Amino acid sequence: MASPTSILSFLLLLPLTAAVSSTQVIKMYPKQHVVGAEPKCESWKFSIEVNNAGSWKSIPPTCIDFVKDYFNSGRYLADSRSVAAFSLNFARSVKVSEGDAWIFDVDETLLSNLPFYKDHEFGLQPYNDTSFFEWVKKGSAPALPASLTVYNWLKKLGFKIFILTGRDESLRAVTEQNLIDAGYSGWEKLILRGPNDDKKNIEYKSEKRAELVNQGYTIQGSSGDQWSDLMGFALAKRSFKLPNPIYYFP
Amino acid sequence: MASPTSILSFLLLLPLTAAVSSTQVIKMYPKQHVVGAEPKCESWKFSIEVNNAGSWKSIPPTCIDFVKDYFNSGRYLADSRSVAAFSLNFARSVKVSEGDAWIFDVDETLLSNLPFYKDHEFGLQPYNDTSFFEWVKKGSAPALPASLTVYNWLKKLGFKIFILTGRDESLRAVTEQNLIDAGYSGWEKLILRGPNDDKKNIEYKSEKRAELVNQGYTIQGSSGDQWSDLMGFALAKRSFKLPNPIYYFP
Repeated sequence: MASPTSILSFLLLLPLTAAVSSTQVIKMYPKQHVVGAEPKCESWKFSIEVNNAGSWKSIPPTCIDFVKDYFNSGRYLADSRSVAAFSLNFARSVKVSEGDAWIFDVDETLLSNLPFYKDHEFGLQPYNDTSFFEWVKKGSAPALPASLTVYNWLKKLGFKIFILTGRDESLRAVTEQNLIDAGYSGWEKLILRGPNDDKKNIEYKSEKRAELVNQGYTIQGSSGDQWSDLMGFALAKRSFKLPNPIYYFP
Repeated sequence: MASPTSILSFLLLLPLTAAVSSTQVIKMYPKQHVVGAEPKCESWKFSIEVNNAGSWKSIPPTCIDFVKDYFNSGRYLADSRSVAAFSLNFARSVKVSEGDAWIFDVDETLLSNLPFYKDHEFGLQPYNDTSFFEWVKKGSAPALPASLTVYNWLKKLGFKIFILTGRDESLRAVTEQNLIDAGYSGWEKLILRGPNDDKKNIEYKSEKRAELVNQGYTIQGSSGDQWSDLMGFALAKRSFKLPNPIYYFP
């Protein structure tokens, strides 16, 4: 039996061996044997964004230039703007009532930690609490522009805004000030992790959403860069996944 | 209050107005104002693949060349190979027992209807039952090569394979023969929709998965091109989303 590595090599690195049994598909793709470094990283990005990859610790070393280019070329901003457009398209369809709520995650959703990740090879270095916390405590993360636009439109439309972050209570003051400095205001509640809460993100966020539902809110929308922000239980009517090819939180 | 169209235009067509409040992010993206036709379609693809778009009827007319190129350049095959790699990486991690099952969808998962969609402008023409059924009844859809590879490896690894399709019972014979002709064999059961079953795909597939669970199977993996193949209840331990920028089924 082949090793896992050999299966992966077979699928990712070699020409389409399996395709010889499918002449019809082959005929449709004249360039199907051309699968160089860039399409491989494009395909890696596709798979991590749709949550096929499961838990992953760091980006593939061969994709560092691809990831840099994704951010530097404007594709990241364009992708986040498309998320904003679909979010607002849905928001406009809601006849907003008193208890209608929208939940935003903080990191890589409302705020961008790119200045930090730019200095840490865009996720090539595995996530490190200490250095990331030092950055967070500076309170200088900029807004992700498309999210700021969505946030302000949602307020105008009458949604109650909840900010639900995996950051813990010790970071409340700096997070609040950072959000204000980045242009956010008027949220209903900023929810942070309590001390000694080491639940997985998906469980923690589901429980907090359930508390809001129990308080009578209807969670219409939820915006986050991690699937664990958007899945689990007490789900929003519609969830919006922002791009993040840098890191993964279960 | 602005109209929905004006919000979408604001976000998709104009330069990043919101970014003026975020000088740090602007500095990181020298080309952030360059959002031409291709990045817009790339971003549309990102959003539909991560399920941000909700129900959609046809591809944007401005993205027809982008979608054609996605299939003709080999990106589609490369993306489906990356899904295969992640699927097999997970499958290899399972210590396979008697009742361990894997579920595959048919259209755009095991079989490719691209020869049909190529003749119908890759989803620019809204889905039409009659002409699609005519194509299906020819029974000549080729295998999606990466899926055939995964399928055969899963059999070798000992998984029981279930094929769960939205096609209805009247198409059983032609579907079975098409699958065999495309190289598939040895499945445990091919499950099709009963007559007059007009449930949404997500509900129908969830119920059929629940029946397998009740029969004692453990659904380890599930592969489909639609989120409605993979979400709902009685979920697989891991779900794998294949690319499909042509159509959407709720």
